[in-house]
Amino acid sequence: MLYLLWQTFSVDADAPDTTPDFSYLAEHCAHIPPIPARSFVQHQDTLAQTLHALGASAYIAEPGASAAYFANISGSHWHLSERPLLLIIRPAKDEHGDVRANISILTPAFEETRAKLLPVPNDAGITYVAWPEDQSPFSRALSLLPDADGAQVFVDGSVRTFITDGLQKAAPNARVTIAPVEIRRLRERKSFEEIEILKCVNEVTVLAIRAARDYMRIGMRESEAGQLINSALTAAGLKDAFALTLFGENAALPHGSGTNRVLGRHDFVLIDCGGTLHGYHSDVTRTFALPQTEVPRSHFPVWRMVHKAQHRALAAAKNGTVAAAIDRAARSVITKAGYGEYFTHRLGHGIGLETHESPYLVGGSEDILLTGHTFSDEPGIYIEGKVGVRLEDCFYINEDGDGRYLTAGVGGPAASPWDP
Amino acid sequence: MLYLLWQTFSVDADAPDTTPDFSYLAEHCAHIPPIPARSFVQHQDTLAQTLHALGASAYIAEPGASAAYFANISGSHWHLSERPLLLIIRPAKDEHGDVRANISILTPAFEETRAKLLPVPNDAGITYVAWPEDQSPFSRALSLLPDADGAQVFVDGSVRTFITDGLQKAAPNARVTIAPVEIRRLRERKSFEEIEILKCVNEVTVLAIRAARDYMRIGMRESEAGQLINSALTAAGLKDAFALTLFGENAALPHGSGTNRVLGRHDFVLIDCGGTLHGYHSDVTRTFALPQTEVPRSHFPVWRMVHKAQHRALAAAKNGTVAAAIDRAARSVITKAGYGEYFTHRLGHGIGLETHESPYLVGGSEDILLTGHTFSDEPGIYIEGKVGVRLEDCFYINEDGDGRYLTAGVGGPAASPWDP
Repeated sequence: MLYLLWQTFSVDADAPDTTPDFSYLAEHCAHIPPIPARSFVQHQDTLAQTLHALGASAYIAEPGASAAYFANISGSHWHLSERPLLLIIRPAKDEHGDVRANISILTPAFEETRAKLLPVPNDAGITYVAWPEDQSPFSRALSLLPDADGAQVFVDGSVRTFITDGLQKAAPNARVTIAPVEIRRLRERKSFEEIEILKCVNEVTVLAIRAARDYMRIGMRESEAGQLINSALTAAGLKDAFALTLFGENAALPHGSGTNRVLGRHDFVLIDCGGTLHGYHSDVTRTFALPQTEVPRSHFPVWRMVHKAQHRALAAAKNGTVAAAIDRAARSVITKAGYGEYFTHRLGHGIGLETHESPYLVGGSEDILLTGHTFSDEPGIYIEGKVGVRLEDCFYINEDGDGRYLTAGVGGPAASPWDP
Repeated sequence: MLYLLWQTFSVDADAPDTTPDFSYLAEHCAHIPPIPARSFVQHQDTLAQTLHALGASAYIAEPGASAAYFANISGSHWHLSERPLLLIIRPAKDEHGDVRANISILTPAFEETRAKLLPVPNDAGITYVAWPEDQSPFSRALSLLPDADGAQVFVDGSVRTFITDGLQKAAPNARVTIAPVEIRRLRERKSFEEIEILKCVNEVTVLAIRAARDYMRIGMRESEAGQLINSALTAAGLKDAFALTLFGENAALPHGSGTNRVLGRHDFVLIDCGGTLHGYHSDVTRTFALPQTEVPRSHFPVWRMVHKAQHRALAAAKNGTVAAAIDRAARSVITKAGYGEYFTHRLGHGIGLETHESPYLVGGSEDILLTGHTFSDEPGIYIEGKVGVRLEDCFYINEDGDGRYLTAGVGGPAASPWDP
């Protein structure tokens, strides 16, 4: 996904009975298990060891992607409200002298029963700290620390300012600061299990686009194509499905036009879509023609340059390279071909428990690509009023330090405008 | 709404053709206009004058309730992403020497076109500050300040920590801190126009409950009752409708049981529901019997005590009183009757552009009630396995300094379990 979707056609609740049967897509990822409990415990312990190394007393997150990574508490498990529920992870030495994670959940007192139902995997047991309605949640949270005075407490970057501020005010001599890159990287760099999920969800998204394309016709509306894609993604078993569908020159507008355009004989179809499997996101864009489409000659070099830029970016992505250099690799292909001004956005974003997450493949970034990092590779050329082409596949840096497409299992990137 | 809804029965997309016709409810608020542009400008200028008085250089908010109040940028107008879009309001003197608001929108460069479509009311024009993908949004934001060094910058409490942190790091000698109570109060204290909207949305929510109740029957499921309420709220023209429906002893569980229980002959029905009109929320709870219900004798004193507590709280709510005292007024009624341990939550919350917003009617709070403040008044008694009763009407502090129910126009609180 390039950016947030502006185009939001409502999906017709009474879908026509002619909805194609995409149920066979569900088989593709049926064998992929969710992250096992022992891996969550490993995430927690690695965090604890990192905190220990950094001299920090605690890491605090609200329900969301980071809490999902460390403790299986996503934003859909627990919606944010004005009453903080916080995941608090502290380093502690076990009987062998090894640093292990100590897990606490700060919960509103009257929601303690529900908080205890959160499926938090942990060996050693979880401490639930309930704060009564008439007391400060922040003082209760910090009462966990034997010596809050002077303690270094790291908060996840997505935590709301009133919480960070409340914690700081509850312990004025503590240092309550945003978690540094050493901690961010724990979630950024994916394990083998995470990569297996990310591969499958991205593969089946490509399969869904191809399957839906077979039912697309000249004269169909953008919203109808979007419904086909949504049906295919949902039939594939993905959650949180999204689909941006843009026809012809609409694809040249950053967010589409909202006109629900009809597909003409000379139009490309741009589909940017995805969903989640076990909480992990896919994100794939294809710009293609139908068999019946008569593609204007001028469109070919545009498609080919985007295709080439996508390939060049992957070739440049190695363990140890700088994020800005990958963006530059794609951009220089497009710029040399004279389309530089039409490539109006960064090359890509990290992907995992969030569709967009750090690090980013963007000019100016000094972030270093490392084994286990995952990114979208999505160059584009957008010539307003004429044509828009974007091609997007996500990739990871493998054990050998090379970039590999997460979609490779189903053939990887599009081969041509007729072979997405 | 007492708290977040756990119970989430999916509303059947193919609603039965027997859905009652609630369309007449749409008339109730048809004459209520949204907040006019001049009022937004007034909100902005009052903020600018407050900033000036506090010696602050700027106020910064992300899309959400505060940005909606000052500039009509709600979270549905612009979804949060990793790329900050920020509302920046600075005090400036006009040609008469009056302090007026200077409005800027910091936007991702490639989304500038879309940002300019945001319906921000302002007399003097808005400065759009675009940050290119390869530069720091925070440095761009602070470049608006003639002297960021040493400047006091207030951020809204809901801003995500990575933004507050990014601003602070971009200007290490500035003071980037959470907005103080003087600024929070601007949104907390409602204007005449806002009260009119809040009255109507709360009134029509009561009407929706009464209308839906006429179609409720012994033997119906919680989800069916929920669908009736949802249909009525939606027919009334409300957006973001929600309905928690709990039968019998399920109402004694803080979030219901998720059992989708059938309504028995001896059960109370608890409905906690609401929606929005022009962005402003309603929140109403009724615990009632149907005409056919045979209410157990033991339930009456419970219902009456909650009813009495609700009344006592309103009577105690005056301009200048302390929030904790209002909670105590309700709690002492229930405690004296021997049910103190079963009133397990705070009395109420502020309400406006958020369902729950500051200040709160809760023990320990030293917040002062002032004219224009709006609150829910929602005492409850929850005896697990037996009975749960909650009654909720929202009220405001009027010009005379007295509490008045926002639902008074349709009769205010329930009169009896048979007359909700």
